[in-house]
Amino acid sequence: MTQAHPTTAPTDPAPVTVLGLGDMGRSLARAFLAAGHPTTVWNRSPGKGEDVVALGAVRAASADEAVRASGLVVVCLVDYDASDAVLEPLAEALEGRVLANLTSDTPARSRQTAAWAAKHSLSYLDGAIMVPVDVVGSAEALVFHSGDRAAYAAHEDTLKALGEPATYLGEDHGLAAAYDMAMLDFFYGAMGGLVHAFALARAEGIEPASLAPYLTTITGILPPIVEYTAEEAGSGAYPANGANLGMMAASVDHILHTAKDRGLDVSQLAGLKSLTDRAIAQGRGPGSWSSLVEVIAADR
Amino acid sequence: MTQAHPTTAPTDPAPVTVLGLGDMGRSLARAFLAAGHPTTVWNRSPGKGEDVVALGAVRAASADEAVRASGLVVVCLVDYDASDAVLEPLAEALEGRVLANLTSDTPARSRQTAAWAAKHSLSYLDGAIMVPVDVVGSAEALVFHSGDRAAYAAHEDTLKALGEPATYLGEDHGLAAAYDMAMLDFFYGAMGGLVHAFALARAEGIEPASLAPYLTTITGILPPIVEYTAEEAGSGAYPANGANLGMMAASVDHILHTAKDRGLDVSQLAGLKSLTDRAIAQGRGPGSWSSLVEVIAADR
Repeated sequence: MTQAHPTTAPTDPAPVTVLGLGDMGRSLARAFLAAGHPTTVWNRSPGKGEDVVALGAVRAASADEAVRASGLVVVCLVDYDASDAVLEPLAEALEGRVLANLTSDTPARSRQTAAWAAKHSLSYLDGAIMVPVDVVGSAEALVFHSGDRAAYAAHEDTLKALGEPATYLGEDHGLAAAYDMAMLDFFYGAMGGLVHAFALARAEGIEPASLAPYLTTITGILPPIVEYTAEEAGSGAYPANGANLGMMAASVDHILHTAKDRGLDVSQLAGLKSLTDRAIAQGRGPGSWSSLVEVIAADR
Repeated sequence: MTQAHPTTAPTDPAPVTVLGLGDMGRSLARAFLAAGHPTTVWNRSPGKGEDVVALGAVRAASADEAVRASGLVVVCLVDYDASDAVLEPLAEALEGRVLANLTSDTPARSRQTAAWAAKHSLSYLDGAIMVPVDVVGSAEALVFHSGDRAAYAAHEDTLKALGEPATYLGEDHGLAAAYDMAMLDFFYGAMGGLVHAFALARAEGIEPASLAPYLTTITGILPPIVEYTAEEAGSGAYPANGANLGMMAASVDHILHTAKDRGLDVSQLAGLKSLTDRAIAQGRGPGSWSSLVEVIAADR
């Protein structure tokens, strides 16, 4: 193939478009610019993104013009209501390009937008950014992608500008959001327990700074527990190893009573206790805590 | 002072008695024996603890005899109903000795037993073993103690046989159990989130083994979060740093919807959401997640 512009060799950073210039959108644009990608930007409301324009991004006059500037179009907005509204009129402009939606929402919304893209024969990737705004573009920034495998392969180099561990999870467009949700599920369980631990400690006359070093030791014992819980949930066998579910449920009950005695909110703990109660009623007490995976799923 | 038996120098390991020979009680006896302490043992129902007798422990014919054999009497039973029942008739035998109760229960039960000890002018320590049975006696085994400061100082060397980081927390007899409860509060929040994450992943077609490495990355980001949550809960100031409570509550809502869509049990998540809803209604959305510490305590 003849190169019309010999200065643009095939290995030069490919052009990319960013739709949406909120905190995350601007961070994506900065990462692409830093990696040398010609970057076109657009935001629905004007005035946003002067900082990335100052860094070399080209502001398009319309979303349509922005899309037509690049082979890869990245969108990152507050949720899928917002991204669907922006994308709906762009189906024609997106023809022959790859759309990568990095907006954060549920797997169901990802699959719904994938169905819209399929209806218009568009090449669609659905992703999830797993790190804060200020970490995007660094070597360790984890970004998940799922959907059209060939589209990912074609644009992997560009997407790696957002973070080296750009990870393709599979053809199901919901996978990136599903991994996102599962990781956050663990994270927010811990984050809910964390604030409750400090509230309980304060109610018992313990300074947060005195408790913190001990809570940090808890984080250290979690990785091997993650590993064996994965093994047990994978095999569906839940033998007791050390403390069994019944003994651990008694501990949950002790915490619940202590917190209630102090008049604390116990919503999250009471939810957990309702689950362990059901597990014990099912005869799972002598087995391992991991068998709660089955109890959680049993409502299905 | 004249030494009647010059072979028993004051630095020799001091005698100790262990009441209760369940899994943990036997583990305590093994640790004392391993450190060279003359160890007397007793269990309410006979036949238990042949293993520690084989290692050199002396089995007493009665609880009274066991108590009178040592200056330090350690009790570890299934809960305080059990330990109170064993201790009640021993008040006279315990006179002039130190009682260290390592049974696990709530701070309220610890303080109740401390009040009983005070009534009988007994020297009482209340502790909490923070490690599994098979870790007791190793250098890193964390054991908390609280109550009579002089009694702890007098028997610190013996108690360190259970684990080098024998930690005296203060005169309030409830402190060891309170630290225990606060640490477990964080732990079980994370453990509830963990099993829910695997249940959600499986419902979305993700193998537990595929998710596990990503959950391990979550454990790695928790220590600095523990630190700044402690700082904020200590100061009572909750400025937003990066993601604010409102944005994080939206994530909790996404997870809850995803899990509900899959028909999963959402008790723990719904409890957490009721808390974030209340925080947002109080105008805490723009601040940091840590301010939930205040919302949890506000029911008091």
